[in-house]
Amino acid sequence: MTNIQKLVNELKTKDLKGYTHDFLQTWDKTVPELEATILTAEIMYAMWKQNISPRVFDSGLAVSWFRDNSTRTRFSFKSAADILGLSVQDLDEAKSQISHGETTRETANMISFMTETIGIRDDKYLGYGHTYMKTVSESVEEGHKDGILPQQPSIINLQCDRDHPTQSLADITHLKTYFGSLENLKGKKIAMTWAYSPSYGKPMSVAQGIVSLLTRFGMNVSLAYPKGYHLISELEKQAGKFAKQSGGTFEVTNSMNDAFKDADIVYPKSWASYGAMERRAELYKKGDQTGIEEIEKDELKENAQHKDWECTEEKMKTTKNGKGLYMHCLPADVSGQSCKEGEVEASVFDRYRIESFKEAGYKPPVIAAMMFLCKYHKNNPADILEKLFKTKKPIRV
Amino acid sequence: MTNIQKLVNELKTKDLKGYTHDFLQTWDKTVPELEATILTAEIMYAMWKQNISPRVFDSGLAVSWFRDNSTRTRFSFKSAADILGLSVQDLDEAKSQISHGETTRETANMISFMTETIGIRDDKYLGYGHTYMKTVSESVEEGHKDGILPQQPSIINLQCDRDHPTQSLADITHLKTYFGSLENLKGKKIAMTWAYSPSYGKPMSVAQGIVSLLTRFGMNVSLAYPKGYHLISELEKQAGKFAKQSGGTFEVTNSMNDAFKDADIVYPKSWASYGAMERRAELYKKGDQTGIEEIEKDELKENAQHKDWECTEEKMKTTKNGKGLYMHCLPADVSGQSCKEGEVEASVFDRYRIESFKEAGYKPPVIAAMMFLCKYHKNNPADILEKLFKTKKPIRV
Amino acid sequence: MTNIQKLVNELKTKDLKGYTHDFLQTWDKTVPELEATILTAEIMYAMWKQNISPRVFDSGLAVSWFRDNSTRTRFSFKSAADILGLSVQDLDEAKSQISHGETTRETANMISFMTETIGIRDDKYLGYGHTYMKTVSESVEEGHKDGILPQQPSIINLQCDRDHPTQSLADITHLKTYFGSLENLKGKKIAMTWAYSPSYGKPMSVAQGIVSLLTRFGMNVSLAYPKGYHLISELEKQAGKFAKQSGGTFEVTNSMNDAFKDADIVYPKSWASYGAMERRAELYKKGDQTGIEEIEKDELKENAQHKDWECTEEKMKTTKNGKGLYMHCLPADVSGQSCKEGEVEASVFDRYRIESFKEAGYKPPVIAAMMFLCKYHKNNPADILEKLFKTKKPIRV
Repeated sequence: MTNIQKLVNELKTKDLKGYTHDFLQTWDKTVPELEATILTAEIMYAMWKQNISPRVFDSGLAVSWFRDNSTRTRFSFKSAADILGLSVQDLDEAKSQISHGETTRETANMISFMTETIGIRDDKYLGYGHTYMKTVSESVEEGHKDGILPQQPSIINLQCDRDHPTQSLADITHLKTYFGSLENLKGKKIAMTWAYSPSYGKPMSVAQGIVSLLTRFGMNVSLAYPKGYHLISELEKQAGKFAKQSGGTFEVTNSMNDAFKDADIVYPKSWASYGAMERRAELYKKGDQTGIEEIEKDELKENAQHKDWECTEEKMKTTKNGKGLYMHCLPADVSGQSCKEGEVEASVFDRYRIESFKEAGYKPPVIAAMMFLCKYHKNNPADILEKLFKTKKPIRV
Repeated sequence: MTNIQKLVNELKTKDLKGYTHDFLQTWDKTVPELEATILTAEIMYAMWKQNISPRVFDSGLAVSWFRDNSTRTRFSFKSAADILGLSVQDLDEAKSQISHGETTRETANMISFMTETIGIRDDKYLGYGHTYMKTVSESVEEGHKDGILPQQPSIINLQCDRDHPTQSLADITHLKTYFGSLENLKGKKIAMTWAYSPSYGKPMSVAQGIVSLLTRFGMNVSLAYPKGYHLISELEKQAGKFAKQSGGTFEVTNSMNDAFKDADIVYPKSWASYGAMERRAELYKKGDQTGIEEIEKDELKENAQHKDWECTEEKMKTTKNGKGLYMHCLPADVSGQSCKEGEVEASVFDRYRIESFKEAGYKPPVIAAMMFLCKYHKNNPADILEKLFKTKKPIRV
Repeated sequence: MTNIQKLVNELKTKDLKGYTHDFLQTWDKTVPELEATILTAEIMYAMWKQNISPRVFDSGLAVSWFRDNSTRTRFSFKSAADILGLSVQDLDEAKSQISHGETTRETANMISFMTETIGIRDDKYLGYGHTYMKTVSESVEEGHKDGILPQQPSIINLQCDRDHPTQSLADITHLKTYFGSLENLKGKKIAMTWAYSPSYGKPMSVAQGIVSLLTRFGMNVSLAYPKGYHLISELEKQAGKFAKQSGGTFEVTNSMNDAFKDADIVYPKSWASYGAMERRAELYKKGDQTGIEEIEKDELKENAQHKDWECTEEKMKTTKNGKGLYMHCLPADVSGQSCKEGEVEASVFDRYRIESFKEAGYKPPVIAAMMFLCKYHKNNPADILEKLFKTKKPIRV
């Protein structure tokens, strides 16, 4: 049996009836639904590599709605849409303030008449990104019910203030490949730690996404950050609950060293302090864009107190057999390369560069899997993939 | 017989030999040609809803050339191109002044080597937009004759200073659906009226498009505006002539109340005063962009004298049985929602929100119909659609 | 036998085993490889004109990476990608300084997971553009070897500091069509001459591309420029060597009149002086963008000393039988039309306008041919084209 057939057979065992139209947070999905997403991504990537087209659309739009900059995710979204047969249309909404629900509802409907999927990045302001995506989702669901939209487009979260599911699912697909199976991840220790960066406060959603996802797969997750850099409390608590359910553990520490000790995997990555995030959200609420820019200096000064939070060779030696796997969502702030002092020592980054690039490579198939399952979860998606796989329509002659 | 087959059969009865390559103004087309455009839009929308692909191109470009901002029409154009199989390329010409015919001719040819259709929005300056589109059309026609272009791309007017045919045809398709048939529109009264808006002077082409189109279908069209806000005189006169030919009526009044009285349909919508339009065109001719921005304040002051031109519940009560249909090309300036005082009272807008959103939904299939008929009017388009319909190639698996 | 079949048969005789993955400079290719590129372009253009699809991709990305402005080449690249079945994604990297190899390597990989071809324009700074493209090429080759990229995307040079192969190959395809065959070009004289332009210093790569390519086909190439406006010395020397090998000639002169005398073809085109190019590269190296803008005035003053370098009717009379073919890569600075004093007299330009537009029309098929051969040179590309040609899948119904 081919590897693809094995994956398809496994996919058939997953209950996807409740997958729903959108993919906003991994914790909205059951573990089998998450496993199915990973399997689908693996199937699609394998088909693509074997020159077998996973195209399911003859036409249709995929709307790319970035409320924050992006190159990497923009290309991943485009690739995912393209292999499924969808054409991307950017919504450039940067300059318009969305002031109330009514306007969002109208915009959401106006871009959706022939749209199958909408990918949104809205990650800058605590309390806003996820809420916004929900509003868009509710608007198109209502639009579909009201007969305005012939079909209901799926909303795919391309990073919000709470979760970054396309990243965390690409990360776990990488780990599954690296360690051989999801089963093998059980009992493995991962250190999700804050790291120093000289650049402006980044969203917390990568860290939140990682601790929320990996605690569901029996891993021992150690979350480390300096005081004041905690995540959304509700999500930290939820991670603890997830760990208990899955037979893993979840601990929070203020020591990078403790987290690294005997870790099988380390994920050192900067984010803004919680206080900074709150101040920014407050200013955003007031519409004070100048204020947001003005507090940048203070935030950088705050970060600079923790320059020792760097992923060094010395710290790497303390990981499991000195060979813990380094991960990053990229681009990393590499000390002496992309900045003077940053998240990771150059020699560490360089040793794991190929692995971290491969990690990024799972993003396009993961997004394609989300688009596909959001659309076809009620239509025996495994059978659709099996048929495509057996038809063997080439991507290139 | 299915509904699509009925529409196809009706389409077969229309004489389309003289449809021509472009769609610039509805009054360049015969009534049967307009009816055919509406029918084709209905067929394509119905096919899309039934998951039957109306794709006629394997590849080819659709050029999207916006000389004024747009989100709504941009998405409609993209959707229309996409369901037909064309790939959209934006021409971002915002910063270049087109100074003489030669340059336009060159640009038009350079973007057209493998282009099937060019959608242009150029609606800001009285006397310029339509003329510009004509120049582009003549340039590619000449280029085709000269052997430069293997094929002649169609020019689709996405709003000019004179007409907004994609809007007016979406509007009449909405009315046809709402009232059951074009036949049923005969004798119905529509109030196309100016309304107050706190935002900068908008083009007159929506109003011009509506009165020019609906007078051809036996409707009683009442055009209302404050003194000084008249449309291009030639077009008002033409509407009168059209009404006579079709058995409808056309009246112009300076009272919103008169227009609303017993109206089956109301279309309250802001536009700039004629004087303002003339001043702007004059400044544009001189290349005085600063001047154009400077007169904005005066224009807003001018508008502010007519704040009573609002579509209120009180005025709605005077329409036919108090149940006249509210229409708008969107986005509307809704009092108390998107602005303090605007075109329409919130409760009126909200009651008709779903209908006005559906109205907008006809734009993608209408544009697709235009692209299709401009290209295939000599090739038995009804037969092409019938074949596609019977082939039942799915849009989604 | 049809014309397409004849071209396919001729293509079969070309040895393409060593074509390589990229198209960076014409002089990286053998003469048979260049002939094959021209033949493939002709085949694809003919298929397109006969409504036969040359599409070889079901999906996949073509990345459009413009580090300098472009409308013409952007549309050509889009058209080329589209007829082959690839979807274009723009990389907007304008604002980011690429500071060291590591970052380029990362960017190159991140945009390439499902990318088949990358077109790059990087033509502004002497010593940088070609080098940059090489780095991108090496990065994706390495990424493919390291298992990061499932396939290696081709790099297509859309103009660098050294060569402009999509232009020069479009030009020679035009000449082949105009004079009947490549054979007929042997012994024909072409004057590639500098011409005055009132606009900022343009790249030298068009001139370098022309003299480097046409000397390989037995032409007598006369390169003319005012003192100080020479090309990269190494490339001038190489052109001399090429001419010797092909049985043509190559001369350099400082007299436009000498170059025009008895020329079968003239190509008058402005570029910056070599000194200006060196100064700009120096300032670029220092990151002094302001400095680059400041030297503009001096450069324009320098150019203005040579206003007599204009392609006039008088000069045209001295060409072969007074009927030499005028060529230009467009847009041309036409005296009295697009500028006061420029590269060419209006009556000359107007007489050859249609020819120069046709010349531009070869760019889309030439780029498609490059993309196709870079990808399929080891897979009997002539057989692939023959099969497509015989399948006769229509582009439009």
